[in-house]
Amino acid sequence: MLSEKLKRIYGEAHSDALFVECDFLRRYLTGFYSTDGFVVVTERECVFFADPRYFEAAERELGGSGIRVAAGAWEEAKEYAAPYRVWGVPYPYTSVSRQEKYRMAGHETVDCMPALGAAMIVKSKEELSLIGRACEIAEKAFSETISSLKEGMTESEVAALLEYRMRQAGANGTSFETICAFGENGSVPHYETGERKLRFGDPVLIDFGCKAGGYCSDCTRTFLFGDDGRHGTFKELYGHVLEAHLLVLETLRSGMTGSEADGIARKYLGKFGLDKFFTHSLGHGVGLQIHEMPRLSPKSTDVLSDGMVFSDEPGVYLAGELGIRIEDTVTLEGGKPRSFMKSDKKLIIL
Amino acid sequence: MLSEKLKRIYGEAHSDALFVECDFLRRYLTGFYSTDGFVVVTERECVFFADPRYFEAAERELGGSGIRVAAGAWEEAKEYAAPYRVWGVPYPYTSVSRQEKYRMAGHETVDCMPALGAAMIVKSKEELSLIGRACEIAEKAFSETISSLKEGMTESEVAALLEYRMRQAGANGTSFETICAFGENGSVPHYETGERKLRFGDPVLIDFGCKAGGYCSDCTRTFLFGDDGRHGTFKELYGHVLEAHLLVLETLRSGMTGSEADGIARKYLGKFGLDKFFTHSLGHGVGLQIHEMPRLSPKSTDVLSDGMVFSDEPGVYLAGELGIRIEDTVTLEGGKPRSFMKSDKKLIIL
Repeated sequence: MLSEKLKRIYGEAHSDALFVECDFLRRYLTGFYSTDGFVVVTERECVFFADPRYFEAAERELGGSGIRVAAGAWEEAKEYAAPYRVWGVPYPYTSVSRQEKYRMAGHETVDCMPALGAAMIVKSKEELSLIGRACEIAEKAFSETISSLKEGMTESEVAALLEYRMRQAGANGTSFETICAFGENGSVPHYETGERKLRFGDPVLIDFGCKAGGYCSDCTRTFLFGDDGRHGTFKELYGHVLEAHLLVLETLRSGMTGSEADGIARKYLGKFGLDKFFTHSLGHGVGLQIHEMPRLSPKSTDVLSDGMVFSDEPGVYLAGELGIRIEDTVTLEGGKPRSFMKSDKKLIIL
Repeated sequence: MLSEKLKRIYGEAHSDALFVECDFLRRYLTGFYSTDGFVVVTERECVFFADPRYFEAAERELGGSGIRVAAGAWEEAKEYAAPYRVWGVPYPYTSVSRQEKYRMAGHETVDCMPALGAAMIVKSKEELSLIGRACEIAEKAFSETISSLKEGMTESEVAALLEYRMRQAGANGTSFETICAFGENGSVPHYETGERKLRFGDPVLIDFGCKAGGYCSDCTRTFLFGDDGRHGTFKELYGHVLEAHLLVLETLRSGMTGSEADGIARKYLGKFGLDKFFTHSLGHGVGLQIHEMPRLSPKSTDVLSDGMVFSDEPGVYLAGELGIRIEDTVTLEGGKPRSFMKSDKKLIIL
């Protein structure tokens, strides 16, 4: 018997059977993580094909879940799904080589990602709790890390230390490559962490996140490593970015489009002529992947609703000078945003 | 003008132009790393399309290399490659969604991965030097880590510490998820690092590696955390696995097949009735990816030649009891193996 969630996905996929190899999608469908395996969803049941490495653990974890665990890999999964002519496979996560294999086995394919994506965009209680945990770990590790910053440390060293603290606090790993930018490097929104050394008076921008149970957190904090008295502009801009960030948390409502959400921050920054320095979109969905639906951008028609999770990350960048970004991972609950982050976002001066 | 390397790949791909989006393949073709971008190789030139995040750095790094850097992304790359009807794309690393996009743009595709794979299997001097660096970092971090092991530490903690030490020593990241197995957990060849605590007398198996300039190292060490006097079997088996590992380094020759190489270790272990406990293959190619060609397995017909890089990793596993694996990353040079690892592999007892 299929769960309600699987029944809906199956119904919307317009295939005879879903045939899924991609790891995070297998995890979404079954709740079980493995580096390899096959999930087949038919109108009757969901079967997870596990090789000897995973079979026992899968049986233990999925017992009573309604998902059947079968021993095997490609050959066994293929044979089981043979009577189902049209396979629903996730096109963005299926290689052309794999699709050729499916066709050689006599199957037509259709893209099941729209059906999966529609389900994945709204998170369950369990998913929200894992995202919350990933946010908690990230914040804890961040506060431990900044308390041990010292002049002369490189961006790479700080990123490595933060990642180590996240692992120690229970993270499965990072949710993306940590961005750690000192001084003027903060003005590049997707800066690649390098060997610049920390100096007294540097602004520091760190964009980081980790995974808990496969689910991601995404957070950015900007602060000062000491105040050398030349930070008038920085402090003024920080105040505006923080206001924009908080205004989204206060006034965003379920039912708005991604474009309307983005507009809250963009319009506010526009009052100070700063919208032209806000060179990316307000946010993106966060879940098993660090970037997923919905989009919160000037052109997004995605309608935001309760249970969705996304980032609220306005930023202002003065090329070659400085960059400020403040980002929380947020969900919509009872029509309103609730941030997973607990820390105060007033400017930190170390 | 195309370099000799690109000319050969282009010639073997049987397409009008290569169109490559996959990150590690872009890196192989251009030598430049970016998370996004497009590489187009025609009969005349190789062009890297870089977005604003990467344009400057790419121009700086690729100046004089013969590779042209152009500003742009999908639209610009597509327009440039429009006159070339048949695009060579790497099927194992191209999603069905991307292929549909190429077809919508009016192109046929063929798989260029065989041509790329044939070139990538033999490493250049620069590639060998980066793999050597990745091995050096891994070994340094390993020796630093084991000197700080303490009773009660969990497998996850030890893995996190080792990964942190590799980052500190200059690694870009890990080349795969570190396997750290205490005691009986070592008997699972692909064990997933967990929360088992270290106890006096435990055998410890750590399979780890890192990246330097994108290139991987792969190493496994098994040792004793103290000798509780009950390790007779362990020590005997360790000796046999080490002999098998060294015998490969001594007697493997360029021109042998992967199957013959695997047979060196398997036959030796067979003399002691241990071949049935050697439940995986001897090795796999190592390069920009942790698992690539050639295969060193009982059925492999891959012919090994100078400049190839692979792992030499015999192992013996007694289910639920213990596991021993000893692994170096190795290249073939002047017809013979040369290990990138410098450390003594005599049994370590901490």
